[in-house]
Amino acid sequence: MFDTIHEECGVFGIFENRTANVAASVYFGLYALQHRGQESCGITVCDDGIFRHKRADGLVSEVFTREELDKIGCGNMAVGHVRYSTTGGHNHNNIQPLVIRHIKGNMALVHNGNLVNAAELRRSFEMSGAIFHGTSDTEAIAYSIVRERLTCSSTEQAVERAMPFIKGAYSCILMTATKLIAFRDPKGFRPLCIGRTHDGAYVVASESCALETVGAEFVRDVDAGEIVVIDKEGLRSIRTNCEDKKHICIFEYIYFARPDSVVDGVSVHHARLKAGELLAKYSPVDADIVIGVPDSGLDAALGYANASGIPYGIGFIKNKYIGRSFIQPDQNQRENAVKIKLNAVRESVAGKRVIMIDDSIVRGTTSARIVRLLRDAGAKEVHVRISSPPFLHSCHFGTDIDSEENLIAGKCHSTEEIAQYIHADSLGYLPVDCLSELVDDRFGCCKGCFTGDYPIDISGAGKKNKFDEKIHK
Amino acid sequence: MFDTIHEECGVFGIFENRTANVAASVYFGLYALQHRGQESCGITVCDDGIFRHKRADGLVSEVFTREELDKIGCGNMAVGHVRYSTTGGHNHNNIQPLVIRHIKGNMALVHNGNLVNAAELRRSFEMSGAIFHGTSDTEAIAYSIVRERLTCSSTEQAVERAMPFIKGAYSCILMTATKLIAFRDPKGFRPLCIGRTHDGAYVVASESCALETVGAEFVRDVDAGEIVVIDKEGLRSIRTNCEDKKHICIFEYIYFARPDSVVDGVSVHHARLKAGELLAKYSPVDADIVIGVPDSGLDAALGYANASGIPYGIGFIKNKYIGRSFIQPDQNQRENAVKIKLNAVRESVAGKRVIMIDDSIVRGTTSARIVRLLRDAGAKEVHVRISSPPFLHSCHFGTDIDSEENLIAGKCHSTEEIAQYIHADSLGYLPVDCLSELVDDRFGCCKGCFTGDYPIDISGAGKKNKFDEKIHK
Amino acid sequence: MFDTIHEECGVFGIFENRTANVAASVYFGLYALQHRGQESCGITVCDDGIFRHKRADGLVSEVFTREELDKIGCGNMAVGHVRYSTTGGHNHNNIQPLVIRHIKGNMALVHNGNLVNAAELRRSFEMSGAIFHGTSDTEAIAYSIVRERLTCSSTEQAVERAMPFIKGAYSCILMTATKLIAFRDPKGFRPLCIGRTHDGAYVVASESCALETVGAEFVRDVDAGEIVVIDKEGLRSIRTNCEDKKHICIFEYIYFARPDSVVDGVSVHHARLKAGELLAKYSPVDADIVIGVPDSGLDAALGYANASGIPYGIGFIKNKYIGRSFIQPDQNQRENAVKIKLNAVRESVAGKRVIMIDDSIVRGTTSARIVRLLRDAGAKEVHVRISSPPFLHSCHFGTDIDSEENLIAGKCHSTEEIAQYIHADSLGYLPVDCLSELVDDRFGCCKGCFTGDYPIDISGAGKKNKFDEKIHK
Amino acid sequence: MFDTIHEECGVFGIFENRTANVAASVYFGLYALQHRGQESCGITVCDDGIFRHKRADGLVSEVFTREELDKIGCGNMAVGHVRYSTTGGHNHNNIQPLVIRHIKGNMALVHNGNLVNAAELRRSFEMSGAIFHGTSDTEAIAYSIVRERLTCSSTEQAVERAMPFIKGAYSCILMTATKLIAFRDPKGFRPLCIGRTHDGAYVVASESCALETVGAEFVRDVDAGEIVVIDKEGLRSIRTNCEDKKHICIFEYIYFARPDSVVDGVSVHHARLKAGELLAKYSPVDADIVIGVPDSGLDAALGYANASGIPYGIGFIKNKYIGRSFIQPDQNQRENAVKIKLNAVRESVAGKRVIMIDDSIVRGTTSARIVRLLRDAGAKEVHVRISSPPFLHSCHFGTDIDSEENLIAGKCHSTEEIAQYIHADSLGYLPVDCLSELVDDRFGCCKGCFTGDYPIDISGAGKKNKFDEKIHK
Repeated sequence: MFDTIHEECGVFGIFENRTANVAASVYFGLYALQHRGQESCGITVCDDGIFRHKRADGLVSEVFTREELDKIGCGNMAVGHVRYSTTGGHNHNNIQPLVIRHIKGNMALVHNGNLVNAAELRRSFEMSGAIFHGTSDTEAIAYSIVRERLTCSSTEQAVERAMPFIKGAYSCILMTATKLIAFRDPKGFRPLCIGRTHDGAYVVASESCALETVGAEFVRDVDAGEIVVIDKEGLRSIRTNCEDKKHICIFEYIYFARPDSVVDGVSVHHARLKAGELLAKYSPVDADIVIGVPDSGLDAALGYANASGIPYGIGFIKNKYIGRSFIQPDQNQRENAVKIKLNAVRESVAGKRVIMIDDSIVRGTTSARIVRLLRDAGAKEVHVRISSPPFLHSCHFGTDIDSEENLIAGKCHSTEEIAQYIHADSLGYLPVDCLSELVDDRFGCCKGCFTGDYPIDISGAGKKNKFDEKIHK
Repeated sequence: MFDTIHEECGVFGIFENRTANVAASVYFGLYALQHRGQESCGITVCDDGIFRHKRADGLVSEVFTREELDKIGCGNMAVGHVRYSTTGGHNHNNIQPLVIRHIKGNMALVHNGNLVNAAELRRSFEMSGAIFHGTSDTEAIAYSIVRERLTCSSTEQAVERAMPFIKGAYSCILMTATKLIAFRDPKGFRPLCIGRTHDGAYVVASESCALETVGAEFVRDVDAGEIVVIDKEGLRSIRTNCEDKKHICIFEYIYFARPDSVVDGVSVHHARLKAGELLAKYSPVDADIVIGVPDSGLDAALGYANASGIPYGIGFIKNKYIGRSFIQPDQNQRENAVKIKLNAVRESVAGKRVIMIDDSIVRGTTSARIVRLLRDAGAKEVHVRISSPPFLHSCHFGTDIDSEENLIAGKCHSTEEIAQYIHADSLGYLPVDCLSELVDDRFGCCKGCFTGDYPIDISGAGKKNKFDEKIHK
Repeated sequence: MFDTIHEECGVFGIFENRTANVAASVYFGLYALQHRGQESCGITVCDDGIFRHKRADGLVSEVFTREELDKIGCGNMAVGHVRYSTTGGHNHNNIQPLVIRHIKGNMALVHNGNLVNAAELRRSFEMSGAIFHGTSDTEAIAYSIVRERLTCSSTEQAVERAMPFIKGAYSCILMTATKLIAFRDPKGFRPLCIGRTHDGAYVVASESCALETVGAEFVRDVDAGEIVVIDKEGLRSIRTNCEDKKHICIFEYIYFARPDSVVDGVSVHHARLKAGELLAKYSPVDADIVIGVPDSGLDAALGYANASGIPYGIGFIKNKYIGRSFIQPDQNQRENAVKIKLNAVRESVAGKRVIMIDDSIVRGTTSARIVRLLRDAGAKEVHVRISSPPFLHSCHFGTDIDSEENLIAGKCHSTEEIAQYIHADSLGYLPVDCLSELVDDRFGCCKGCFTGDYPIDISGAGKKNKFDEKIHK
Repeated sequence: MFDTIHEECGVFGIFENRTANVAASVYFGLYALQHRGQESCGITVCDDGIFRHKRADGLVSEVFTREELDKIGCGNMAVGHVRYSTTGGHNHNNIQPLVIRHIKGNMALVHNGNLVNAAELRRSFEMSGAIFHGTSDTEAIAYSIVRERLTCSSTEQAVERAMPFIKGAYSCILMTATKLIAFRDPKGFRPLCIGRTHDGAYVVASESCALETVGAEFVRDVDAGEIVVIDKEGLRSIRTNCEDKKHICIFEYIYFARPDSVVDGVSVHHARLKAGELLAKYSPVDADIVIGVPDSGLDAALGYANASGIPYGIGFIKNKYIGRSFIQPDQNQRENAVKIKLNAVRESVAGKRVIMIDDSIVRGTTSARIVRLLRDAGAKEVHVRISSPPFLHSCHFGTDIDSEENLIAGKCHSTEEIAQYIHADSLGYLPVDCLSELVDDRFGCCKGCFTGDYPIDISGAGKKNKFDEKIHK
């Protein structure tokens, strides 16, 4: 049904030294992170200790009217979240920020990632009488922190003590009545970075492209395992949970993050150009033009063209008006309706041998449709090149890859068979060995979905709470 | 600002012996209870252990479209709630049903009433690491039950053990994966009754008028302190928390409940007729016509007319199209705009000495406006008679009466002064001593708002969670 | 399908001597006229010759938000309209005010009524190249006036000349850049009256109850055939089209108009009381209680009770939250769901012989359901009395009565048969001869739906434009 | 205020040989034309002579829900329209399709273009009693056709006779009860083409990219001056109004049309590549990278890169989630907020000499902001090249160019001054003489906005109906 991959979340937080329209700042920041989650979003403002929030299903543009923004209004801190839900199903209670009250006060939490021991954590809390409103991992993180908070003197210390119990991927921002605490799991699966405005406000965001929307300049990434505390005294760091090696998800570079973001010091655009160049080196083919599947295939296509010397072309027009409310065509109309979303530029490809660059193949049906678009537009040959290795395994760290039995790379025995399935004249993938080159071998990456080797034990994962999954909005 | 009194909630539950469109049944039931709360509403369906729900701000007619009802759809059990929020402020997390997951499974809870020891309960749970999503008393009830559930063998036993710790007014319906459990606090502040359809489905509702909307016949009221368990085995009762004496809120009869409901064996219409008759007896006046302020003053006006022999008349037309979206007139238009909502029937009152019956006076400003409507329409004299005693005290059991310093009966020293304030030729209240006669002296009533004597200790009440109160939707 | 009768429209206009928030005034006025049409509404403001308008399907409360009102904003004149559509089907183009531009400028027109020569008029204009956007009669009226306007010196003169060509029922308000022109057909089928505020603003409205919402006092009714011109010079009258005899629709008194309105000098409440008294005289029965079906049966019930000496009671509670969005119950639920809308007060009727007063019987199915409600609530006998004669004929003057073949009074041969059909112990109608007494024999009334005798030739009527009728919104 | 240019409309029509879901076909077609108008849209279906329509403000995705589409549903013909309004202001009555009734039946009309004698036409019709509901030119076209229809035997003949009276730009589709008539003004200002599906259905659309969304293959363009009649007999052509020379708007190629469309035989993508190549030839500069401003500058940038040998790069990321509901930032936030919509890719431009290709400069403020984005991202030099000549004159044929006094090219005396204004190191335009080369000198183009020479007399134009312009929705 869904022949695509989804990131789950984007987070954003701001700490101002004075009362300001922080809701608007988060609103602008979330716009820049909308590609990380289109299902729901929310903003929580802290105004002198009072929390006001708005959370709902929909895009930022759908949820936040001028009136709604004004209602949550001004304060000196705020956090926000965009979400594509998988874990926990579509449950209105899972929409973030998670705002809770505990013995020491209020707390708002936003989280990007996925735990591998969520079920175990939930069970242990339930054993002592805990109740859960939603099914997201985020509530388990909150309980873990609150439990420690009972016996220690500050929230940051509680976070520090709780982190060893929380296994998996989590890039979080936590807001209390007085501080913003950003923390990233010891493997650093998901990105998180810090910026600062000219006025001295601190900003924390999933990607650097969001910093610029509020006039902040990039300061640095939050380190894997680091806890960053921002309050009136400024910014300080707790590094007791830091490990030696980072394992950022390589797919952030290939597909998720925006090309204008710099993640852990590496430009996403640069990594994609590099992927294209490596593809050209390891999977060359003689052709007349190189085109990319918009939007994420464009950078790699340019890299391939540059490295191969074959001209770069504009092969497709993507309809930018297709949104969540698009009415799906019926069976008869389906074949044509694919052309509503994506249409080939006949002038570019007719009569030509075409190299088509895409970021990945999941089930293969979408790729087959796109290849057909090119053939219908007169392409003589279609050579598909994928700027990542074949998907073979599930992701347990916040990416919604299809179940393994649906992945075409697992079902077909050879690249040739897949090429045949998608009607390509040839097919080439980026070799697994090249992945580290995308980040210039500067740090380790999680390549689990390609290799099956995960940076942490996943035996507790996947036992998601099926019971609640059908709780609807 | 609000010169009126609000009930807080209505609850409804149904248990079918087979899968049925229980969402629609609750929808119809909530329509009949809409007068008990117009701010938000929700329905939770249990379909073979799976819970689906929809909750939102707005009237039943606004929240539930055909599409939304279909989405939550069929099951064998469902609970629903309408709410006017006071405790907990306007927080989307407070909208009921409260649906939570605990160690033994899922649970949906609907609650009408108000606790006096909520702050204390919350604190005790927070001390052991609990987190609260909302600020309503309902979450404290849920925690109380879950705590007991850890160490006992059934949910009903957990309710039984938890009730002694929960102080205040609570008429609740709790739904688990297999049963519906209805329980009412030992004083029985708020109504709760049981009905049964021809097909054998059990229905529980705040008022009997809701039973008829789903074809159920009234079976009996839930007793004060009683726990009623409904499952595949049928209905059984746990009475360990029952006390000798009931203390139902007398204002349910005077204003809240619908005249076509029978509450604890007494017809609401009958009680109001009686109030009118007693008013005629204790506060007689010579006049040409008796009219009631719609809608709640009509029954008492008829009682007054019957007892006094003065003709009953139709004195006002109430505009039934005024809703939540009515745009308030500006200062210049205000004087006239009151006539949009309520207009006097000149033909009935012009040139006459009029007795106008209303259920209560809160601040007096509304009463003054209504008296003026009659004078503008040519009434020669306006004698106001109130079918309840003067409001002097707060309510701690689920009614949103204004703060004591705003109540005109407390501010003015005499009935004459109030009459003068509202420009009435005379004013009469129902004597406090008559209240018991409204229910034919069949059981005790809480008359705390008139007398200041409450059936239980309220020293812990009123310490509402001010911290969170500004959390907006 | 629709066992009910519909009025088609209400009109409202205001002329201020200065720029004022006239949109708000019309908004308030339309609220008071909402009972005359709930399908669509609109307001047009004239601000120094510039017209701004908003028209849409829905109730006044649904169509006009604060923002929408502000957008059309201030001016010195405005007209508004509420509509229940029959003629012309449900076509968005038919929503009024009709705003058009012709050779002499802009014009906004609102109309209550129905023409009998609309098809003929349309055809004659089309013969000379006219195009019609909608299917309403109103566009034909506009063309008629514009045609005359080409050859005469003022709009009022054009109206004067056009009226003889326009046959049927029309109470209209026409707004040009500088004046408000109110006119009423020579028979005066539909009401229209004039009021004035303390500031000197003139108001024109379908019913007097709307005048009060803007602080206007009733001045007088517009006479049948009269043209009233309001501009900076004040108010003047053109009476060349006036006839000797008025023929106002008697059903305005029985059902359409609000009881607090005075129409052509007769109080609607008074007329209904009278109808009840006459019913008691001509259709007496021994019983214990007299109750009215809300809302329009209440006044007549009181009249019956007064005249017969049998006590008046409150027999029904009508659910005021049922709106256009109510989700209809399915077949199984239908029987109960009628009780959602209207519920009997058991206390009032159980064990009693009940006289139930309603304003009319159309198909009989609704009456049968209401009688059943009373029997289910324990009524021993149910005697139905109708405050009008039996419906036997169509209306051609703006009322949406069902087609003749569906009217039960035509299908059943005797009152006894109808009584049997609706399960009443007895049934009585108001004799046709009594109708004139409702208005104290002060002027003539159209009683065509009861007698088949219409004040004007209807041979051209009923040829509605079937072609366009299925044009949807 | 609006530093941009707007096309006014897109039209789409389909004729099936059997009853089909034509509303859905038009829905898909309008999606592909949405770039031609985002303010309002509408669809009219003809089902056996019955017209059903839905028209409203908003994008296709906002106006048409599944429910709305189902309501207008099936038929054998349908027409649709997307609109950006200028003429006639924002008046709900101007939303197309214009559906009217005249002496010979129903007619639905969609129109792309702008007349130069609309005021004159309107006046002449008003002189004979015509009334206009809206202020659009379309109503004048309809009247012109209806006038002729009175005296001739078919609608196509009426169109043929009316065309000589209608001056200006008009690409129209007219639907009667039995036929679809497509016609294009004798100059052919706006595009219009014909396609056919495998099932034999005919499709007419503004651009060829829309044909493919319903599975139609391109057949041919409608010729300038041609009338194409499609009915059960098939397709036939009337060419009496055809002229020798075509004058299609050159800006269709530069900016309006989609790159995947072929207009009058010339690929839009090809024309833009060519523009880039010519720019490189006539306005060369030494640099490190060529980037295009998305979306319309990308093709020309590629052409420039190819011709110059300077590498093509991806310089910007455009946020695709910004829609009509985007809340504008306040003054303080504005400087940053531009980066929400468009952000530079630092990796591509930092430290480089950049050639930035855009399609046009209107007021210059937007260009200045984009140049600044590049400098902020570290560009060493920014050389702006525009793929069209400087705007100097108004358009009278359906394009909403700013008034002449706001065009920077008219205000500044030299290209150098403009370069300075937008902070570019250098600035170059496409020479006017090159424009014909974009379409390979195959036919004439209207270049009026660059040259002031218009293909037809415009002395009657510009006298738009100011009177009504403030009529709001």
